[in-house]
Amino acid sequence: MALMHPHDKSIPSDQARLLISCPDQPGIVAAVSRFLYQHGVNIVRSDQHTTDPEGGLFFMRIEFRLQDGQTPLDQLEEAFIETADRFQMSWRLGGASQRKRLAIFVSKEDHCLTDLLWRWRIGELHADIAMVVSNHPDMEPLVTPFGIPYYHVPCNRDIRLEAERRHLELLAKEQVDTVILARYMQIIPPTMIAHYPHRIINIHHSFLPAFIGAKPYDQAFERGVKIIGATAHYVTEALDQGPIIEQDVERVDHRCRVEDLKRIGRDVERLVLARAVQWHLNDEILVHGNKTVVFA
Amino acid sequence: MALMHPHDKSIPSDQARLLISCPDQPGIVAAVSRFLYQHGVNIVRSDQHTTDPEGGLFFMRIEFRLQDGQTPLDQLEEAFIETADRFQMSWRLGGASQRKRLAIFVSKEDHCLTDLLWRWRIGELHADIAMVVSNHPDMEPLVTPFGIPYYHVPCNRDIRLEAERRHLELLAKEQVDTVILARYMQIIPPTMIAHYPHRIINIHHSFLPAFIGAKPYDQAFERGVKIIGATAHYVTEALDQGPIIEQDVERVDHRCRVEDLKRIGRDVERLVLARAVQWHLNDEILVHGNKTVVFA
Amino acid sequence: MALMHPHDKSIPSDQARLLISCPDQPGIVAAVSRFLYQHGVNIVRSDQHTTDPEGGLFFMRIEFRLQDGQTPLDQLEEAFIETADRFQMSWRLGGASQRKRLAIFVSKEDHCLTDLLWRWRIGELHADIAMVVSNHPDMEPLVTPFGIPYYHVPCNRDIRLEAERRHLELLAKEQVDTVILARYMQIIPPTMIAHYPHRIINIHHSFLPAFIGAKPYDQAFERGVKIIGATAHYVTEALDQGPIIEQDVERVDHRCRVEDLKRIGRDVERLVLARAVQWHLNDEILVHGNKTVVFA
Amino acid sequence: MALMHPHDKSIPSDQARLLISCPDQPGIVAAVSRFLYQHGVNIVRSDQHTTDPEGGLFFMRIEFRLQDGQTPLDQLEEAFIETADRFQMSWRLGGASQRKRLAIFVSKEDHCLTDLLWRWRIGELHADIAMVVSNHPDMEPLVTPFGIPYYHVPCNRDIRLEAERRHLELLAKEQVDTVILARYMQIIPPTMIAHYPHRIINIHHSFLPAFIGAKPYDQAFERGVKIIGATAHYVTEALDQGPIIEQDVERVDHRCRVEDLKRIGRDVERLVLARAVQWHLNDEILVHGNKTVVFA
Repeated sequence: MALMHPHDKSIPSDQARLLISCPDQPGIVAAVSRFLYQHGVNIVRSDQHTTDPEGGLFFMRIEFRLQDGQTPLDQLEEAFIETADRFQMSWRLGGASQRKRLAIFVSKEDHCLTDLLWRWRIGELHADIAMVVSNHPDMEPLVTPFGIPYYHVPCNRDIRLEAERRHLELLAKEQVDTVILARYMQIIPPTMIAHYPHRIINIHHSFLPAFIGAKPYDQAFERGVKIIGATAHYVTEALDQGPIIEQDVERVDHRCRVEDLKRIGRDVERLVLARAVQWHLNDEILVHGNKTVVFA
Repeated sequence: MALMHPHDKSIPSDQARLLISCPDQPGIVAAVSRFLYQHGVNIVRSDQHTTDPEGGLFFMRIEFRLQDGQTPLDQLEEAFIETADRFQMSWRLGGASQRKRLAIFVSKEDHCLTDLLWRWRIGELHADIAMVVSNHPDMEPLVTPFGIPYYHVPCNRDIRLEAERRHLELLAKEQVDTVILARYMQIIPPTMIAHYPHRIINIHHSFLPAFIGAKPYDQAFERGVKIIGATAHYVTEALDQGPIIEQDVERVDHRCRVEDLKRIGRDVERLVLARAVQWHLNDEILVHGNKTVVFA
Repeated sequence: MALMHPHDKSIPSDQARLLISCPDQPGIVAAVSRFLYQHGVNIVRSDQHTTDPEGGLFFMRIEFRLQDGQTPLDQLEEAFIETADRFQMSWRLGGASQRKRLAIFVSKEDHCLTDLLWRWRIGELHADIAMVVSNHPDMEPLVTPFGIPYYHVPCNRDIRLEAERRHLELLAKEQVDTVILARYMQIIPPTMIAHYPHRIINIHHSFLPAFIGAKPYDQAFERGVKIIGATAHYVTEALDQGPIIEQDVERVDHRCRVEDLKRIGRDVERLVLARAVQWHLNDEILVHGNKTVVFA
Repeated sequence: MALMHPHDKSIPSDQARLLISCPDQPGIVAAVSRFLYQHGVNIVRSDQHTTDPEGGLFFMRIEFRLQDGQTPLDQLEEAFIETADRFQMSWRLGGASQRKRLAIFVSKEDHCLTDLLWRWRIGELHADIAMVVSNHPDMEPLVTPFGIPYYHVPCNRDIRLEAERRHLELLAKEQVDTVILARYMQIIPPTMIAHYPHRIINIHHSFLPAFIGAKPYDQAFERGVKIIGATAHYVTEALDQGPIIEQDVERVDHRCRVEDLKRIGRDVERLVLARAVQWHLNDEILVHGNKTVVFA
């Protein structure tokens, strides 16, 4: 059935990415670019950022293609260790064509889920969706036609530990890299956050830090704001306080009731979440402290 | 000198506005429109809003022109009392050509002031600027070429009461209708707020309710937001909590330092404040509770 | 199956709408509101617009609820004729709960179709989707799970007349009110336009009037624009020249290739089309000349 | 007088910029960064772009600081020739603190001029404004308080050649680098364009390529668009066809008359022009063919 086979807009298998964070100092770019040149790679795109030219942090992302007959990726990785150590780099080198494995957590609202499934189907998301997990059975008919496993894991105060154990078990079994909270509406326990540091993305339905917590559209209505928004962020232990990846807003006016804010907000939420997921999948996000550098 | 004479894009002297707030019930529009028709006025524009069709509040704004040989404005006002009483209306009827008298309060940043003065000069603001008041002498050279009085009223913790007295005295003497806080950066005392209910407009340099209080751009930088904004609101006793009139935002990214947020923010602030002032001058804002209905 | 039963956020059966266009003159609002009041209706929302207070056109849209024991809709309609004739009105009075019947025409891109189907499923679109028509068989698996008939009607230069006949036959048989061209990419023949005046909505993938005709994203890339957009408009005989209903844009930059413009554009297109369809279904659009008045 | 002394937010005198365009090939970044490292410079910011990884063009902009006791700028320039030649670079190396000299051309609308003068006064524009030139005397009182020379050069069909000669003479005498057409509304002759290739910036009051030519707001009103915009571009011989630097838009609706479009448009125009001028002054724009790469 057509629905189940996403277009494969595959990234060439010889394409790779190098991500670097380190204290800024002269010579980093020279060393890295010399290294890559000597190993015969072809740079497709390169971005860099320094938080402060006087002793700040340095971030770099290079997308490149390995050339035939030159150093293969694993040897490149080994060879880079010397340069990396010299500059005290945190770094990652990996094939760009390798698909991350996603788990999408969802509750009773389907707009973000439907949008992600559609993007995946048409080949916009370079990822495998390993599973959809929900505390409700409602979304199953949306998911199974895509051939994606759907796990209904009930979750409430009394069975939280049990649910948590089940979640971790499922994620481990399916070797999930990244968890997307597509309006999951449940607190994520510290254990899971510790297992997936900066690999759990949440969509919050307000422009944070405004309207933290429950029912942000009701809060927005009450306050009488003239714009509403949505925020995609990495989940940390502090509720709605993690590093912000992306935000966007839409105008509203005095005629909007809470239902209207929710309707308008749905379109903002799904676009914001989709952009954040896209960037994460493409390794375009680097986190430092409680902030993100987005090379999108 | 050309600078001192704003273009007079005057509103016709026979143009008037009726503003109404009352409990919603059937027959209001029929009664009001019949009343206006019988007195021979010509409706230019009409807006209405009901917060809730089941027993909410009703708001209406009608802009119209009196016809030659028909009821003049003062008689129209008297004649309307009966209708107004029948529906328990709060209402206001006034000539649209009458200019409100503004006082602009400013501190050390001039972007909002300069923008308002420019709009006034080219005829965008249908108002008289009765004075500019500041706790610093710095802005005087910007103001005096326009022939507008500039009052330097120092203000700090120790002399707050004295400053307050001086402010009220100046505003009273010059029959000021509306006070614009164009980045005044000082707390407005309750006495002044009581004198000018919903007639003091402040521009706050964040998208409220995010980043209430001091140094919102520093707060925004610290939090790592991807959009910054500005909010124009009526001043009430609760700091940065008054009815929001207008908000807008602009994108920022990881490369922006606090100075960049401030620079980008200046353009948002002046546009947001200008729109709010414009709407206020045109009687396009109705306040209910802590919210605004904007018929712009 | 859950997919097939859209949430029924039904509009109350006693809710109705009156739409009016006529030459402006004093007394229209008084007459209409008096008429409605006398027949005991309860106004939920009212909008009006005058193109020019000196002898322009007047437009009005009133949404109201009939009261128990008062004049029913058909009698109200008859009774209104007198008032309508007095002011030479073009007018329409109808139950708001009555669902329009849509046909969605689509070609090989599914983003607009998928989005409309999703909105319909969650109850955002107050309409029946009578059919999806395509010149390709590709979209059938997306449509049939919703229980909506899918008609594959091949169409090319040689069989255009035959296709046209088939289209009109299908639309007539299923009593379709409104045709949505959700990226149909085929010229609509004059006969069909004549059958559905201001009832065929097209989404064009540029901010018209820029980039009329084929391959607007390629044109945009070639020109090096910094924003791209989409336009929803009623179809008239002049290609991409009909009354514009809604437009929106998104930023792009020098790094975007044509594929990126297309990807970014998809999100703009589906939102713009959805808003236009929404407004059309809610009778919020009035057309005059080649322009729209949108009471949204 | 305060007005005349812009804040001097000066760029450090040891800060410099290197701009490069050349055919893409492996090793460019390695060679350039090695060169800079060997000469002891400290990179503040670096941006690069490749139009097509398979044989496209390569663009790079590096902002850096010279270190005490290291190669001075003029020697650096000489030393770079070898590297530049190896990769067939078009390149420019210059001190970032050196202010460009601007001429602002204006006609009868002052919004762009006033905005640029304000930005210059508060130190946002790192430039010297050598003169303001106009075909009308009207703007003189706005300009002279800043201590900037104002030249009234009448211009019409009959005296075009004379005006042109006078313009070139003034620009040459004052060693003007860049000409800003801040709503000048006159055709720029080919001679002047030839003298200032990609150094004349125009603001056109529409989102190009829509509404080329005269009276774009009237055209927009006629077409019934729902967004209006403005475009800053480098002037070339083809009217309104030069490389686009920046664009932005604002929403309008059926209630807007041409005057409203103009009023709303003024705010878009001045922001768009200011951004373009800013980027040009900071050497953040590289032109290729009829497009711009903007490293802002």
